[in-house]
Amino acid sequence: MTTDSNTFPGDYNDAFPNSFKTYLEGKGVKVPVREIRLSGGEEPIQVYDTSGPLNHDVRKGIPALRKDWIAERGVENSERSLAQTDMIPEGLKRPTLVGKGNVTQLHYARKGIITPEMEFIAVREGFPAEFVRDQVACGKAIIPCNINHPEIEPMIIGRNFKVKINANIGNSAVTSSIEEEVEKLQWSVLWGADTVMDLSTGKNIHETREWILRNSPVPIGTVPMYQALEKVNGVPEDLTWEIFRETLIEQAEQGVDYFTIHAAVLLRYIHLTAKRTTGIVSRGGSIIAKWCLAHHQENFMYTHFEEICEIMKAYDISFSLGDGLRPGSIADANDEAQFAELKTQGELNKIAWKHDIQVMNEGPGHVPMHLIKENMDKQLDWCGEAPFYTLGPLTTDIAPGYDHITSAIGAAMIGWYGTAMLCYVTPKEHLGLPNRNDVKDGIITYKIAAHAADLAKGHPNSQDWDNALSKARFEFRWEDQFNLALDPVTARAYHDETLPAHGAKVAHFCSMCGPKFCSMKISHDIREAAEKDEGFKAMSEKFRQEGSKLYVDKDDSESAAE
Amino acid sequence: MTTDSNTFPGDYNDAFPNSFKTYLEGKGVKVPVREIRLSGGEEPIQVYDTSGPLNHDVRKGIPALRKDWIAERGVENSERSLAQTDMIPEGLKRPTLVGKGNVTQLHYARKGIITPEMEFIAVREGFPAEFVRDQVACGKAIIPCNINHPEIEPMIIGRNFKVKINANIGNSAVTSSIEEEVEKLQWSVLWGADTVMDLSTGKNIHETREWILRNSPVPIGTVPMYQALEKVNGVPEDLTWEIFRETLIEQAEQGVDYFTIHAAVLLRYIHLTAKRTTGIVSRGGSIIAKWCLAHHQENFMYTHFEEICEIMKAYDISFSLGDGLRPGSIADANDEAQFAELKTQGELNKIAWKHDIQVMNEGPGHVPMHLIKENMDKQLDWCGEAPFYTLGPLTTDIAPGYDHITSAIGAAMIGWYGTAMLCYVTPKEHLGLPNRNDVKDGIITYKIAAHAADLAKGHPNSQDWDNALSKARFEFRWEDQFNLALDPVTARAYHDETLPAHGAKVAHFCSMCGPKFCSMKISHDIREAAEKDEGFKAMSEKFRQEGSKLYVDKDDSESAAE
Repeated sequence: MTTDSNTFPGDYNDAFPNSFKTYLEGKGVKVPVREIRLSGGEEPIQVYDTSGPLNHDVRKGIPALRKDWIAERGVENSERSLAQTDMIPEGLKRPTLVGKGNVTQLHYARKGIITPEMEFIAVREGFPAEFVRDQVACGKAIIPCNINHPEIEPMIIGRNFKVKINANIGNSAVTSSIEEEVEKLQWSVLWGADTVMDLSTGKNIHETREWILRNSPVPIGTVPMYQALEKVNGVPEDLTWEIFRETLIEQAEQGVDYFTIHAAVLLRYIHLTAKRTTGIVSRGGSIIAKWCLAHHQENFMYTHFEEICEIMKAYDISFSLGDGLRPGSIADANDEAQFAELKTQGELNKIAWKHDIQVMNEGPGHVPMHLIKENMDKQLDWCGEAPFYTLGPLTTDIAPGYDHITSAIGAAMIGWYGTAMLCYVTPKEHLGLPNRNDVKDGIITYKIAAHAADLAKGHPNSQDWDNALSKARFEFRWEDQFNLALDPVTARAYHDETLPAHGAKVAHFCSMCGPKFCSMKISHDIREAAEKDEGFKAMSEKFRQEGSKLYVDKDDSESAAE
Repeated sequence: MTTDSNTFPGDYNDAFPNSFKTYLEGKGVKVPVREIRLSGGEEPIQVYDTSGPLNHDVRKGIPALRKDWIAERGVENSERSLAQTDMIPEGLKRPTLVGKGNVTQLHYARKGIITPEMEFIAVREGFPAEFVRDQVACGKAIIPCNINHPEIEPMIIGRNFKVKINANIGNSAVTSSIEEEVEKLQWSVLWGADTVMDLSTGKNIHETREWILRNSPVPIGTVPMYQALEKVNGVPEDLTWEIFRETLIEQAEQGVDYFTIHAAVLLRYIHLTAKRTTGIVSRGGSIIAKWCLAHHQENFMYTHFEEICEIMKAYDISFSLGDGLRPGSIADANDEAQFAELKTQGELNKIAWKHDIQVMNEGPGHVPMHLIKENMDKQLDWCGEAPFYTLGPLTTDIAPGYDHITSAIGAAMIGWYGTAMLCYVTPKEHLGLPNRNDVKDGIITYKIAAHAADLAKGHPNSQDWDNALSKARFEFRWEDQFNLALDPVTARAYHDETLPAHGAKVAHFCSMCGPKFCSMKISHDIREAAEKDEGFKAMSEKFRQEGSKLYVDKDDSESAAE
């Protein structure tokens, strides 16, 4: 991995000083956590770790953790052979599997079977395995895990678990290479991406995806429509169900864990976008809309939805039902087109569940704060409590260049309301393809939003991290404070900008307030003095009993005494 | 103003290309707005402008806009003479005024008088002047405007007006100079700070403040305690009411527009902080707590509160009642100490109002999302609907280096709930004193939060800005999109990183999706085709009438037809 002066080292140990990857033992599983070791006799703190196996050769891929688990299911080698190309090294090649019947986690969950994936997740999230199974069985959570992606460390998406974040990578026709995309993958999981979507649309889509899958410890999502469109040279009118179907199978056999399918963009909804400020802003949505219009036919992903289910159940691919008509501006939020599609998503959820396919629903987009909750409420109601997966939402349109922030506000809120996964937005949104720094900024910003949502939802033990950091701060354990930060290197660099000397790391102040005005330092003095000062205690008690009568007239005395 | 490679030019025209400062005429007032001119025959859009008079000599200060308005009030020259020092150039010297009686905006408002300040604000905010007067009269809004700060362009803080943001500047013992602080002031108002607090605690506090006041078009707030402490060499125990009183008058005569006074930190509340994770994190709060403890006496700002009112009414200084016991960590949010102080703030509001003094209340701090609304509700209830002025709140503790973001989430939410002004937080919070880039990052982030809150509250015309930008985006008017951004230069720079050529500014795509996958481009094709395509219309209508029966079974047909 290359670094430059504007970025921080990509290596785990450089990114997270005094952190150690360690493993929690579960029933037949070893679950990675990042242990942050502290000074002063403080207990270390363990945090959720998405970074995957370290120090592997990208030309060989990471270990196939789930290989044996999958082998015990009803699977066989696929008859198809994947495209041969010398852009994929020998070390990345794996046998391609297909289920003899339904091999989805939902299928097993409904049969009452706790899979190793569920055991893994139970340890990772701190819940009983039976709870994990139950949440999957009733459709409230999904475990995206294609049988052809044995490399993943299983994770779960559902509103009773930690809020997850997705990072989008992928080249476009204008920029980027395979190497860069694999680096972005590694960079993304290092900083905390729970899933990664490969949205490549340029050259070498198949090869890029193969490299990404074999090196990814997290589920990979795609929008198969993008590759299908490449196959017809970018002309939406030339798309056919057969080409789309072939693309689904190709990607299924490579190991994609979830597909964004814009099956709910119905022909009769398209005219609802005609008077919008920003029309259709979803790539997939606009492509299928153009196809429908050209052919005067209903969306082929809708009419062939049950056939798509048949393909997906043989690989355990999850649906991420796309929101092709999401609002692209504040003006278009919560309009008829958007909600018409959401209702159809709910209808399709039922079809997916009929086939024991795991499904989540994609959501907006650009939505002002006061209209966010309606999105969550309607999704829960209309979509049978399937996990919601939203892009932001962005709470204003006026800040291109800062849309990681305009959207983090909406993301934190909708996460609190119940959204299970937040798709990150980088500072380059609307402007260009994100580089490494943008990817990191987007991820850190979304880790903040997700964690803030976990706190607000009262997710068990989430606050331990905040408490450990605040305690370190109050006790002037600067090194611990840095090491506990989401981004330790940046925290340290900011401190050192004005006080670089080693001594400042044990000082009871920083340059923000200087030594005389450090409230925390004074607070320690107060605490110490108050403890041994009987006079203070007596005076405090006296004032407490008297109340403070000075300005309390008769009318107010009651409320002031509360 | 100096610039370096990491910052953008400080000049108005460089910062806001194709923007022009223009003036709206009101009754005896000329109110500045920034007019952003657009291409393609689009109407220009006018946005609130805090940048003040341009191109003035900082050694002479900006014009005294309010000089004549103030002269017509019952004011006289002060008998006191300000400290003489050669650090203050001749050009900055002004006569020092004192009111013969009460000269506050609240005093006039209650008498039914619409002041020129209110006329100015009425035009600035787009409300009738009588509404402005009424909001001030009933204490729901304040107009901070010391008679010794004639340079300000009047602004209002209240929840029925646009949400405002404050930027903190000021040197500390460790770093910074007068020149740097004046530059930070200019930088702050350029990017949109509605008020600026000078929190200097190091050397030359008086002189720094004088330079700042004479050059500031926005209200300046201070925490007088900081200077009082300097006068006793940083030893809280040595503070006296007399020294504090002298400091208030000194700053009043210089022209400070609002004072943060930690009068509600009562002795009996101090022990409530003993078991906190982070004790007392307010500098002012910790200083007065230490004093109370050392002397076994009640807070002298509380016991002398009516005398403070007597001073402030003669200059029209507004109270910003400090929250000295605000929570400094998620663990301490909404605790007994915090709410005890808030209730006392409410008690003091009534005393201030009895004296016709304008007052607002300061609020937290670190608060998880689900506890934010309680802060707003209690403040409205206990503090008689006086304006609330909060620091963030930060919604998690785990991201030092990114606390502008952790807090923007809370700030946007509490702004929506009714907070009138948001005190910015920069990326350096908890780590060091902000530099120019940090100040800008903090301000842009808080402009986002405030605007998102305005949208959510339905503030009149707020959405016009979003609509103009989104329309420009949809129509590929790239230059307009950049120019309409909160930070045009950054938006343009991000776009140009991958597509720098001039031709890309008229292209119907960017590097994010490339030409074939631009949803907006396809959306235009769809719109065009749909308009002239009778077959599509017929098919769409046919499908609409039929509903989509494919997957709707009998049980669901009712809800799906909604």
